[in-house]
Amino acid sequence: MTGEQVHPGQTSSGDAPERITISVDAMGGDKGPATVVAGISRSVKANPDIAFILHGPKDVIGPLVARRKNLAGRCEIRDARGVVSMDDKPGHILRASKDTSMYSALDSVRIGEASACVSCGNTGALMLLSVVRLRKLPGVYRPAIAVLWPSHNPQEFNVMLDAGADVKADERDLLQYALMGASYARNGLGLERPRVGLLNVGTEEFKGRPEMRAANDLIAENAAAAKFDYVGFVEGSDIPGNRCDVIVTDGFTGNVALKTGEGTASLIGYFLKEAFKYTPLSRLASLLAYTSLQRLKKRIDPRRVNGGVFLGLNGTVVKSHGGADATGVAAAVKLAFQLGQSHFSEKLAARIAAATMAASDGSDIKDLKGGDAK
Amino acid sequence: MTGEQVHPGQTSSGDAPERITISVDAMGGDKGPATVVAGISRSVKANPDIAFILHGPKDVIGPLVARRKNLAGRCEIRDARGVVSMDDKPGHILRASKDTSMYSALDSVRIGEASACVSCGNTGALMLLSVVRLRKLPGVYRPAIAVLWPSHNPQEFNVMLDAGADVKADERDLLQYALMGASYARNGLGLERPRVGLLNVGTEEFKGRPEMRAANDLIAENAAAAKFDYVGFVEGSDIPGNRCDVIVTDGFTGNVALKTGEGTASLIGYFLKEAFKYTPLSRLASLLAYTSLQRLKKRIDPRRVNGGVFLGLNGTVVKSHGGADATGVAAAVKLAFQLGQSHFSEKLAARIAAATMAASDGSDIKDLKGGDAK
Repeated sequence: MTGEQVHPGQTSSGDAPERITISVDAMGGDKGPATVVAGISRSVKANPDIAFILHGPKDVIGPLVARRKNLAGRCEIRDARGVVSMDDKPGHILRASKDTSMYSALDSVRIGEASACVSCGNTGALMLLSVVRLRKLPGVYRPAIAVLWPSHNPQEFNVMLDAGADVKADERDLLQYALMGASYARNGLGLERPRVGLLNVGTEEFKGRPEMRAANDLIAENAAAAKFDYVGFVEGSDIPGNRCDVIVTDGFTGNVALKTGEGTASLIGYFLKEAFKYTPLSRLASLLAYTSLQRLKKRIDPRRVNGGVFLGLNGTVVKSHGGADATGVAAAVKLAFQLGQSHFSEKLAARIAAATMAASDGSDIKDLKGGDAK
Repeated sequence: MTGEQVHPGQTSSGDAPERITISVDAMGGDKGPATVVAGISRSVKANPDIAFILHGPKDVIGPLVARRKNLAGRCEIRDARGVVSMDDKPGHILRASKDTSMYSALDSVRIGEASACVSCGNTGALMLLSVVRLRKLPGVYRPAIAVLWPSHNPQEFNVMLDAGADVKADERDLLQYALMGASYARNGLGLERPRVGLLNVGTEEFKGRPEMRAANDLIAENAAAAKFDYVGFVEGSDIPGNRCDVIVTDGFTGNVALKTGEGTASLIGYFLKEAFKYTPLSRLASLLAYTSLQRLKKRIDPRRVNGGVFLGLNGTVVKSHGGADATGVAAAVKLAFQLGQSHFSEKLAARIAAATMAASDGSDIKDLKGGDAK
């Protein structure tokens, strides 16, 4: 109905391999452009059908690219002298960002020469410029950031959104997050019929805020038409759990949850190290347990799932962690590549358009356009 | 000024050991009264100055207590036939709870025959009955649940509140949470000058909801008079971190954060087990790493910090986890004992009274009583 289907050969290309071009902001990360170039070079090994448009000062980026043989013939450089810094205020970003690598990287998506944009820059600035340059999809009020979260589910990850694009969300926004999150799970994780849950508190007597009940009803009413299963309210413990695949919440709560999860994982990692340092015997044990611990580390390594995806825009933007190393950058690029290859952006737009149209057609799909729509 | 000082000999008694009586709801837990009795028996070993009033059906509790020699002469049983179940609705609880073990256990605190109450029962019901029977402290609008969170700090735990007593909190509530949380950290963790932070989201462009800025100003203005250090906004990653000792947030966000942290810890525990099951060699390594892994397990064991404390009431109530085993019950009892021994309840009341009085005196401490107070 909406043209949104899971590609069977999503990661390995089908008959005629399609080259996917990713637009990369080379200047945003804390570790500088050499790390970004190392990251994109690494991602070529896994995805030979990838090409890049790299944005940043040509005299800096050029020599870095020249040193990587596997980038030859697949990496165009666009000169951009300015850099959006972590401390720039929104007003300054809007006025003075035109010559920056971030602006230039987004424009490659805007004019259609790249399938997706990857940046390690400031999240707020990237969201602001993404909204201004790519514009919101018709019918979308608040774009959201979706993150992948290690989980007990077979696909190993759950989708959580909004991770912090906006601090507020009303019931219509939460419904759109459900639609967008389900679409992302379908195309990013290959789940044909994702299970969606709405984050709430668990005690029986205080079933959350009143607006949560309104969102609960609205999402339940729209689940069948949007082809996902709605499991109702879920709790914080379900974000890494297996009750659902997509967890919907406002950006304030989602951002706190994300950082609490990261902080908890890092604390446990520290405790684990301490535990193995305790005695000479435990230090010996840690040597023998080395591969097991590496196996654990790999499963909870945040670099494996590096990349928050901006949803609700005319184009795919992947926000990589500011402190990402080459492995982290490669993971973000891989995600952008997968989403580009599955034509996620077009499918999401079709999905939102279908829901909006159904709402204004006066069908039983509840109002997505606003209070005045039928 | 308020009589709130850290007791030097808080856990080991001073000259004349004072006997502290804890009121225990024997019937609330998922594992039944035998587990509760085993737990209080265990806590006697660590705290010889402890006594109990145990609430539940005498014919069930009596034989369980008789079997534990170390409970002889320190355990009174109050017959209560009813039990508040997990599914009871608030209306039903208010109408029909008079003969329950939970109601009876709270009443021992209300009439002053016990220093604190411990229950493994339904959180919502316990909070509801606590507010009805013990009443809120004068000047307190929303009581809060404070939990201890494993952290990077020297004291090994941070205080976070509200963990889910109420889904809303305005700036006055958040200020009271700061006052109450600081007082709890002083008496529960022995920190003379706790550092308090207000939970918010981190991206520069979207500095949280507008009410957060109002709360930020209000807490900053009151920090000096209430003798804590205010560190300003903190993020989810600071809950297990070392930037502050007390994290203040509303009950919705706090509950999600708490459960996200628990879920993340449990996922990592599962991954760890899986990692060591992978090959015969890794199974051997896990044997050698056994004590190290036990050491880790102990540090992140939720039973060690079992007990959410209800703050803002005339009396101390410790909510133990519903699924707590004997070790968990003993931990909750130990916490209740420590708070009883340090006369926490009286000190907290004095602290709130001083802040309220300062507000109505027209001092520069901002309004705690409401819009109409001077």
